[in-house]
Amino acid sequence: MLDIRVEETAKLKEKPDQSALGFGKYYTDYMFEIDWDKDQGGWHDARIIPYAPLQIDPATMVLHYAQETFEGLKAYRNPEGKVQLFRPEMNAKRMQNSNKRLCMPYLEVEDFVQAVSALVEHEKDWIPTAPETSLYIRPFMFASEPGVGVHPAVSYKFLIILTPVGNYYPEGVAPVKIWIEDEYVRAVKGGTGFTKCGGNYAGSLKAQEKAEAHGYTQVLWLDGNEKKYVEEVGSMNIMFLIDDTVVTAPTEGTVLPGVTRDSMLTILRDWGYKVEERKLPVEELMAAGREGRLKEAWGTGTAAVISPVGELYFKGEEVVLNDFKTGPLTQKLYDTLTGIQWGKLPDPHNWVKVID
Amino acid sequence: MLDIRVEETAKLKEKPDQSALGFGKYYTDYMFEIDWDKDQGGWHDARIIPYAPLQIDPATMVLHYAQETFEGLKAYRNPEGKVQLFRPEMNAKRMQNSNKRLCMPYLEVEDFVQAVSALVEHEKDWIPTAPETSLYIRPFMFASEPGVGVHPAVSYKFLIILTPVGNYYPEGVAPVKIWIEDEYVRAVKGGTGFTKCGGNYAGSLKAQEKAEAHGYTQVLWLDGNEKKYVEEVGSMNIMFLIDDTVVTAPTEGTVLPGVTRDSMLTILRDWGYKVEERKLPVEELMAAGREGRLKEAWGTGTAAVISPVGELYFKGEEVVLNDFKTGPLTQKLYDTLTGIQWGKLPDPHNWVKVID
Repeated sequence: MLDIRVEETAKLKEKPDQSALGFGKYYTDYMFEIDWDKDQGGWHDARIIPYAPLQIDPATMVLHYAQETFEGLKAYRNPEGKVQLFRPEMNAKRMQNSNKRLCMPYLEVEDFVQAVSALVEHEKDWIPTAPETSLYIRPFMFASEPGVGVHPAVSYKFLIILTPVGNYYPEGVAPVKIWIEDEYVRAVKGGTGFTKCGGNYAGSLKAQEKAEAHGYTQVLWLDGNEKKYVEEVGSMNIMFLIDDTVVTAPTEGTVLPGVTRDSMLTILRDWGYKVEERKLPVEELMAAGREGRLKEAWGTGTAAVISPVGELYFKGEEVVLNDFKTGPLTQKLYDTLTGIQWGKLPDPHNWVKVID
Repeated sequence: MLDIRVEETAKLKEKPDQSALGFGKYYTDYMFEIDWDKDQGGWHDARIIPYAPLQIDPATMVLHYAQETFEGLKAYRNPEGKVQLFRPEMNAKRMQNSNKRLCMPYLEVEDFVQAVSALVEHEKDWIPTAPETSLYIRPFMFASEPGVGVHPAVSYKFLIILTPVGNYYPEGVAPVKIWIEDEYVRAVKGGTGFTKCGGNYAGSLKAQEKAEAHGYTQVLWLDGNEKKYVEEVGSMNIMFLIDDTVVTAPTEGTVLPGVTRDSMLTILRDWGYKVEERKLPVEELMAAGREGRLKEAWGTGTAAVISPVGELYFKGEEVVLNDFKTGPLTQKLYDTLTGIQWGKLPDPHNWVKVID
């Protein structure tokens, strides 16, 4: 249990127009901050303070060696006007796993959830109420020790910032064209693919740029060892409906264990779908597309929730899915999951945490 | 050609004791800074300003997605008291290659060298004169745009900071025990292994921690695809003297193209050594060690210059090299290269750049 002090400010920002929130354009009035120092016995000084620039020494290790991790989740207004989170303890646990891989200390699950809840509660007037809007929550942590030697830092900062958001894609939920990448690699067994560390994202930009140059919206990553099996799409997990089976990559070290991924797989199993978490060869995927057995495909992630795939491109071959329209299962999954998240549908697995 | 303005400060720091410099404990009075903004046509406002903390918005992308690269080189006092750099244009070119991979803009080679030279010239009183000391130069660049969407940033900061240093290892040049790692991976073809991006270093900490827990000083990395070929040691390149041939990994995407590596290979060829840049299977390496044909091995890098290998451990087998003593070729390479860098030996390849 953290002892969180609050430092109030008299000067609050004007709230933005809810019809043009975008994604990450506005930040709220306050942020959460807590420090970890080896020579002070670990975590100390939990506080909610006015959102303001950080003072960072130019030698600070995060700017050189990228010892940094983050999470992403959302707060929603339910129909009764209450504030709710969606499975925040999964984000807490995943950040623990990220931090362990990056040799960083981490918050206890209950402290992480307490910090998120306390900041969201403090900033609840910022949670938008318009359809499809929410308050995006960004916990992150980085090495704050100054130094040019390469070693795990002895001091860190953990922060949470908040930004009211609309749809991640300005055009809303609409099918996108996917470029299957066979040159650049996102992750490899023994690397950091299963973590939300900054380096994974910096390293992924080049392939995204290449896909866009070819007229595609996102990259579908293959495994780094054999460039044979499909893994993720952009910074999302990806699922395929082949015949009557949903197939997705297993989380065995290279694929991010997505909260949305896990939730959708659970919902699909609830509905009686056959779900396979297995290595899917890209050749099998393209053959299924060629033969009309690849009915639908969709990316899953907290930011966008779901991103329908309209077309796949691999080595000169194009496969169009469901006439480039959002498929019925994709739409049903989106409606169901967002219905639970916004408190409009029953929550059989107790995923929702009402916090005020 | 940059137009560099200088902002002076009256308050200078006290210079540290040259016998206890360590590595990265002290920073000089000034730093170089230049901004890149897409909407301002690129690079602007080159300046030498007092060393001070940066004001960084908590949403700044470098803290989340690690779009960041760096370089490392040194300035030396030659016997005539002049200041010299060692092949700075190689660092400039390598940073260009790093930045291209990370979708970041970059400085022209001559502007990079000009900025380094101008700052070092301004801070030349900080260059230590004691044996084995130098002024370590750390150029680095990072995404300075605030935002939580994943994309190449539209604004960046490039900085140079300086720190007077002694030996990288407190114990000086001495053989170390090396753990050959077959679980964690540093780099894979199609990834960022050939760049000096922060993510490479954050991802490497875990294996280093593991090696230390087993009583070893550094990690020898195998390739990420087959875990079969030796690539780098810690954050250095590595070379092996097997029989009468020097073998080192080729720079084909996963290995950092080290300036020290290139310089030592050139010196070795000058001396008539047979040099092979090729994939070296770990089994071949261990067999050579077992049979007494592995005469010497050494890591190479700007920070430490050379790090002799005294022992290799792989899957339960230990091989001791040269009775755990620094080998004659290792010592001769160290003496020769540092002799050129400090201006005590002839410089047949015009590697040294005298700047004042």
